[in-house]
Amino acid sequence: MNGTSRSHTLVAMVADHPGVLTRVASMFRRRGFNIASLAVGNCEEPGYSRMTIEVRGTDDEVKQFEKQLYKLVEVITVRDLTDVSAVQTETALVRVRVSAADRPVLADIAGIFHGEIVDVGRDTMIVQITGVSETIDRFLDVIAEYGIDELTRTGVVAMARGSKAARNGSARG
Amino acid sequence: MNGTSRSHTLVAMVADHPGVLTRVASMFRRRGFNIASLAVGNCEEPGYSRMTIEVRGTDDEVKQFEKQLYKLVEVITVRDLTDVSAVQTETALVRVRVSAADRPVLADIAGIFHGEIVDVGRDTMIVQITGVSETIDRFLDVIAEYGIDELTRTGVVAMARGSKAARNGSARG
Repeated sequence: MNGTSRSHTLVAMVADHPGVLTRVASMFRRRGFNIASLAVGNCEEPGYSRMTIEVRGTDDEVKQFEKQLYKLVEVITVRDLTDVSAVQTETALVRVRVSAADRPVLADIAGIFHGEIVDVGRDTMIVQITGVSETIDRFLDVIAEYGIDELTRTGVVAMARGSKAARNGSARG
Repeated sequence: MNGTSRSHTLVAMVADHPGVLTRVASMFRRRGFNIASLAVGNCEEPGYSRMTIEVRGTDDEVKQFEKQLYKLVEVITVRDLTDVSAVQTETALVRVRVSAADRPVLADIAGIFHGEIVDVGRDTMIVQITGVSETIDRFLDVIAEYGIDELTRTGVVAMARGSKAARNGSARG
């Protein structure tokens, strides 16, 4: 199994130093990883951010890479949530081309996927949809026939189920 | 107004070349910008990604920076949505410490903010909340008294209202 390349979800807590993003991104590039998605935002500690990174690689490659990340002083914790019971979610904004006549049909489809219509133009609609990546992919597939004018995805964020205290072993050694 | 530093929301479409993230991030650092949030995900064109970047600076600084970004061959379009009628959204996962007795109260608060409870542990709950950043900030403020165990935010994504065809002038010159 270790030799199989697959998608990994890494979550890193990093100090908000200038250039931390450059250093993390350079490390990915040097190791030859292509980042499928990246989300960086505030976390529970002021002065720190949490990055969620989706990356393809073998288990061994990703494990080595985690160790490399810890060499950066800004990196406080790194966790691979790939095989952990975790909540994963992502949000997409999708501008769909749609005639006035087709609007109700598209609204119905959006509703089925728990999407929300956040803008209606003369010949477009913007749908906001939140869920696991597969759900967003399926929604995009269903509405493809209307024509997707523009699509923005946040990239995945993930969080292990259960309390943080229960998994303190993940902190910087 | 041009001399006032404020938060700008930049949306860039970039080719998925290896190292594109490093180059964009380096450019931010060299110009002395601190990235408040960054979201990178797939977009409507295979082989391209859309980045949404929140950054603080004066209007002039950000305008200069946009021009610099266009010097990277991977950058197809850049748009500053700060003063444009646009949809903005973000998703957060928040693990809150909560006793069994307080669970219904917290569930009520989450409901008011259209949040969804996506995990319940013995003494924690994970709430998923999607909305403009200010709404997420207010939710975090309200639940702070329970104790936030862990917080992950995707960073903002934004999309101009109306159709893309109506604003073709934004493409690379």
